Amino acid sequence: MWHIESSARDENTLLVNESLFTLANGYLGVRGTFEEGYKENFKSIRGTYINAFYDITDINYGESAYGFPKTQQKLLNVIDAGGLEVYLDDERVTVFSDQVTYFKRLLHLDKGYSERIIKYKTKLGKQATITFKRLVSFDSKELFAINVDIQYQGNVKIISTVSADVTNFVDSHDPRVNHGEHQFLNVTHFKHKNDTSIITCKTKRSNLLVTCTSHDVYNKECESTVETTKDHIIKTYEFSGDVTFNKYNIYTDSRRHKDTIENGLSILNQVKTKSFDDLLHSQHLYMSTFWKYGDIVIEGDDALQQGLRFNLYQLLQSVGKDECSNIAAKGLTGEGYEGHYFWDTEIYIFPVFLMINPTIAKNLLMYRYSILEEARGRAKELGHSKGALFPWRTIAGTECSAYFPAGTAQYHINADIAYSFIKYFVTTNDLEFIEHYGLEVLVETARVYLDMGFFDKGSFKLNAVTGPDEYTAIVNNNYYTNAMAKYNMKWAVRIYRLLENHNSRYLGALKDRLSLTTEEITAIEEAANHMYLPIDEELNINPQDDTFLSKEIWNFKETPDAHYPLLLHYHPLTIYRYQVCKQADTVLAHFLLEDEQPLDVIKDSYEYYEQVTTHDSSLSSCVFSIMASKIGDMDKAYNYFIETSRLDLDNTHKNTKDGLHMANMGGTWMSIVYGFAGLRLKFDGVHLAPKIPKQLNGYSFYVNYKNSVLRVTVNHEQLEIVLEEGTDVAITLYGEEINVSLQQKYIKTIERDD
Amino acid sequence: MWHIESSARDENTLLVNESLFTLANGYLGVRGTFEEGYKENFKSIRGTYINAFYDITDINYGESAYGFPKTQQKLLNVIDAGGLEVYLDDERVTVFSDQVTYFKRLLHLDKGYSERIIKYKTKLGKQATITFKRLVSFDSKELFAINVDIQYQGNVKIISTVSADVTNFVDSHDPRVNHGEHQFLNVTHFKHKNDTSIITCKTKRSNLLVTCTSHDVYNKECESTVETTKDHIIKTYEFSGDVTFNKYNIYTDSRRHKDTIENGLSILNQVKTKSFDDLLHSQHLYMSTFWKYGDIVIEGDDALQQGLRFNLYQLLQSVGKDECSNIAAKGLTGEGYEGHYFWDTEIYIFPVFLMINPTIAKNLLMYRYSILEEARGRAKELGHSKGALFPWRTIAGTECSAYFPAGTAQYHINADIAYSFIKYFVTTNDLEFIEHYGLEVLVETARVYLDMGFFDKGSFKLNAVTGPDEYTAIVNNNYYTNAMAKYNMKWAVRIYRLLENHNSRYLGALKDRLSLTTEEITAIEEAANHMYLPIDEELNINPQDDTFLSKEIWNFKETPDAHYPLLLHYHPLTIYRYQVCKQADTVLAHFLLEDEQPLDVIKDSYEYYEQVTTHDSSLSSCVFSIMASKIGDMDKAYNYFIETSRLDLDNTHKNTKDGLHMANMGGTWMSIVYGFAGLRLKFDGVHLAPKIPKQLNGYSFYVNYKNSVLRVTVNHEQLEIVLEEGTDVAITLYGEEINVSLQQKYIKTIERDD
Repeated sequence: MWHIESSARDENTLLVNESLFTLANGYLGVRGTFEEGYKENFKSIRGTYINAFYDITDINYGESAYGFPKTQQKLLNVIDAGGLEVYLDDERVTVFSDQVTYFKRLLHLDKGYSERIIKYKTKLGKQATITFKRLVSFDSKELFAINVDIQYQGNVKIISTVSADVTNFVDSHDPRVNHGEHQFLNVTHFKHKNDTSIITCKTKRSNLLVTCTSHDVYNKECESTVETTKDHIIKTYEFSGDVTFNKYNIYTDSRRHKDTIENGLSILNQVKTKSFDDLLHSQHLYMSTFWKYGDIVIEGDDALQQGLRFNLYQLLQSVGKDECSNIAAKGLTGEGYEGHYFWDTEIYIFPVFLMINPTIAKNLLMYRYSILEEARGRAKELGHSKGALFPWRTIAGTECSAYFPAGTAQYHINADIAYSFIKYFVTTNDLEFIEHYGLEVLVETARVYLDMGFFDKGSFKLNAVTGPDEYTAIVNNNYYTNAMAKYNMKWAVRIYRLLENHNSRYLGALKDRLSLTTEEITAIEEAANHMYLPIDEELNINPQDDTFLSKEIWNFKETPDAHYPLLLHYHPLTIYRYQVCKQADTVLAHFLLEDEQPLDVIKDSYEYYEQVTTHDSSLSSCVFSIMASKIGDMDKAYNYFIETSRLDLDNTHKNTKDGLHMANMGGTWMSIVYGFAGLRLKFDGVHLAPKIPKQLNGYSFYVNYKNSVLRVTVNHEQLEIVLEEGTDVAITLYGEEINVSLQQKYIKTIERDD
Repeated sequence: MWHIESSARDENTLLVNESLFTLANGYLGVRGTFEEGYKENFKSIRGTYINAFYDITDINYGESAYGFPKTQQKLLNVIDAGGLEVYLDDERVTVFSDQVTYFKRLLHLDKGYSERIIKYKTKLGKQATITFKRLVSFDSKELFAINVDIQYQGNVKIISTVSADVTNFVDSHDPRVNHGEHQFLNVTHFKHKNDTSIITCKTKRSNLLVTCTSHDVYNKECESTVETTKDHIIKTYEFSGDVTFNKYNIYTDSRRHKDTIENGLSILNQVKTKSFDDLLHSQHLYMSTFWKYGDIVIEGDDALQQGLRFNLYQLLQSVGKDECSNIAAKGLTGEGYEGHYFWDTEIYIFPVFLMINPTIAKNLLMYRYSILEEARGRAKELGHSKGALFPWRTIAGTECSAYFPAGTAQYHINADIAYSFIKYFVTTNDLEFIEHYGLEVLVETARVYLDMGFFDKGSFKLNAVTGPDEYTAIVNNNYYTNAMAKYNMKWAVRIYRLLENHNSRYLGALKDRLSLTTEEITAIEEAANHMYLPIDEELNINPQDDTFLSKEIWNFKETPDAHYPLLLHYHPLTIYRYQVCKQADTVLAHFLLEDEQPLDVIKDSYEYYEQVTTHDSSLSSCVFSIMASKIGDMDKAYNYFIETSRLDLDNTHKNTKDGLHMANMGGTWMSIVYGFAGLRLKFDGVHLAPKIPKQLNGYSFYVNYKNSVLRVTVNHEQLEIVLEEGTDVAITLYGEEINVSLQQKYIKTIERDD
């Protein structure tokens, strides 16, 4: 299954499909709306987004306090160049017309474009076939290209528009949208000449520029007129008979382009020499390369296979590929969460790219490095004398969270980011990267823990934090935070020593720049060595925090189904009062840091927390799936996995219209690779321990490790590991070291559980 | 010292004096601004307030959640009838003129009015004396009267204005003012006839009406003209020679008056028969009655004596005397805290009135009873199946707190209110009140604790609350909350049983109305009996909550003086991380419920918490003073007392301009009566254990108890208790019972500490 398809024309499905049929390339994203528009009064979020292109809005507080962020950034809906109306002998074609005899849309996951086929019979009984294809180019990131092919014997009119009359989406019924500000762009430049339209807009407060340079190309003579308003350019073309019409839209922004207008034109000049088929061909090539070592195969379940590929495809489309961008919670597929970047990146998405495309993974780290200065400023605001505190949510680097108990209080964000840097290093052995960027991030993040923590009865403790579970806030010694901080601190010391031993010529300069002393390194080490990681002896589990286990357990039995997610039906205080988790917390810590605890504690913790977790967060089920695999409960592993794999395709969370759930998409992949197959990346190399749920016939995936690529294939009979590229790799398989080489693939017969 | 005075004419002092020279009567309040206005560009908060007269504004949240209040109420600045300009031979008189030869203002605490004397020499060298007197009548609550007496040989012009062009105060530099909405009144009726001006305004959203009926009276012939604009009535009077001019302003509002215009006119008709001297006389009578059994005397310190009387006077002026009003945090003296009512009433102000004016004290309880329905609604929103949860801050009864960790989370508000009902009962023995109102409040408040708490290892525990100390938020088993809830629950049961034993004919109906069963009463009793009140054996103190003692102690040594109050210099999260208290918490519990713990625990707790308390709240020092007396450290008791007694008169908190600190004013009185004199009101009667700090020569005060009035006088030689009125009273004095009768005052020689 290399595509998704739909023939839906009802409002609700179309809204969801706008997200599902999004085309993007990490820089530019266009939601899957129709060129010719919808039925009147149909709700639509007609969005075109440039990753990290934002304006600034005030945050209002009923009661503010010191250190509350005063403004936040907001991803903007930019100029709409998607407009193309088609008239056949003056009959306007829409898919909602009774004259439509056939309608289907497809998104090609293997080729990187979408298409829509409309068969239409005019009132005079004449047949027409109209095919729209569109792509957002991976090669020329600024390009959004549309191709419409019209087979019709008669007069064909095409109206092509570029509009700067765009706003962000506001839903007055959604209490989370707290004020009406949604218009952010002012037109500063406006021009049309020789079928090329140029509109430049400036944001109100961030002073960023975006230019759309739109050019129409067609394969036959026509009559054309142009009409302009203050923020629209409307071009009308009249053809006789079949026609192929292309619209090449170049989006340049001042965050990446020195002169958005000049750069836009020069990119257009390069691009317009290419036919749409050329573009499709390049796109196909790019996707083939991606899938070559990126595909994940599931045998025996087509819907699942489709879901997995769709997820990877959308992650690739949304993930930022330059230094000023990352991957938003909803990617480039919608405006949910304001286009902000969260820890979702590090814990749920980075691990995917690290295995299938380390270059993209590295870029995600570079983004974090690029906002280090803002994180240093935030640490100061939070009273820390040194170090950097990464924001809970942001685009440009400053904290954009307006509710600190489930925002700024999540101090684990620092360790999550550090964790990614560490995993990148153990996977790629990229010492240069660590010298230039990695150590600085590890030290600056570790410093905040050193500053905020304190020694108490010989243990180093971290107070007043919120862990991943947002149904428990501002607690002391959250196990996840403490364990992750310990890892962060240990590795800061380890990398420091490593570079010291390598006589790194950058270390001295870095120490000077950070005023870093060996005494401080020793202090960090001391704190890490004595980090408080409590265990409840009676339950044989790690308590989520100092008080979690002393609370009453939520009354699940008397909670009606309609009251989930709890956060929409109970005051935070009510929720905080009970043992109830929105998502994996200690269980997630056990996944990320499995060597911190013996297996029986991990197992007992899993079972304990499973009873009190609602999975109201889409980040939860995949972690439970992974850890069910770890403790050997493959039925549960499968069930949790299956809940998540088609979350957006089946709109199970009912909010796919606001954008796709990027972290969940990464989590689905992880459920297989880290879950079923037991992948772990450690200091001593790659670990695997594949298992397979009885519900699946088999699965296979790729592992990128130190420039080698392995394909791992698992079915009920055997496990196969093939080195596809690179040098021999030693792997710890089920705890024992094996070697895989180009000459010799590894095959092992699997013992059945039953 | 029965007055305060000032000759200041600088902007800052004038702003402070606006609050200090406020005149009010519990219904109507007028800040001490000048009739003739200030110098141009001088900042002024020219306010006229009607207690509980509010409009509704939206609360904005950057991120909202279930149960967050969507709107709040705001006390409004209403129609300004204070305008009176004086011209002498066309020279406009202001106190800022170089022609002023003498200026003084006084507020008469014994007579209940203020006056200003201005001596003026015109440019032609003619002398004038102008005396303004004003009062806000205690007898006719709607009346704000101004009298101006002008001694001058020449032409005298008076311009008298009534203006509906009023707004609430906005300070764009104050981050706590979060939006610009400050204009709330629209003129709906406007009329001038026969020297009587009538303006009616309607609020924007609460749909309340206020009418000002203003009438000018003067003692000689004149020429007059009237000019009106859309929201001003401007009357000009020209006299020859000395003149006495009165302006009677009647404020009627639709919360208390059926027809604000008709009622306003009829009240005016009654009032205008009285001369200003009549009014002064009535005012004096009222004040004499108040002071008769309300005065508190300090010997040996005039400034202190002045501070104490000023405080009581202002409390009397600001306290609501009808069912729809209470006493705001700033009373009727300013707009700080939006005119909201807090727990300040019950814990810091009610105890004062209970002793010196039980009728007013009772009214404060009736207000709470009147908002019980809103409190029931709030309990439901907070997920409680039964009961009432009183709002942290409110005017009309709904929760107006926009920051729940230091607002709604303060579940102790319920027990604080219950505590007042209980103290009222043990002091007055007013069984009828308890039958009609008290038990219902006790049961409804207790129910919330029963619902939110749970049994754990045999103890009843209350989680996820914030205690009085706002530097520690959302904790489990806050000692204060648990102890107060226990008291609340115990008394709900006790009163229930009492009424049952009295065969109260109201109990059955109440049980039906509340669906109250004996099983529920038993459950409440069971919970109260097992309420968790932990003690730290090692420190021999009650821990503030389950985790307080496990936190690091705030680094006071390295905190610069300029960083206090901490809340203006540190993020809440930073503050929550440490052992640091804004105010008394456990120490307050030990004051209110001294029988819960042995004296050594109370003493050790005092000493422990004193080390970590910043007293950043003005509610703190008085409690520490009271408890210093309790543990016998009279130097500390005196020092804490002295810090608070002239807080507003000396503007030590630098924000007196926004209004006077009502709770602190009550606290100062309590420092003497509950502190030095050791007053406690218990089930078994009045307890006293007077001590005296060496810095004072003596003090005396009154105690109202079951319709008897006692005067207690203490100096270094002896203690005297005189029954001024009523029947014999048995008192527990220093733990032993004594009897005081009309025939026999009680005298005891005091043993000196040294």
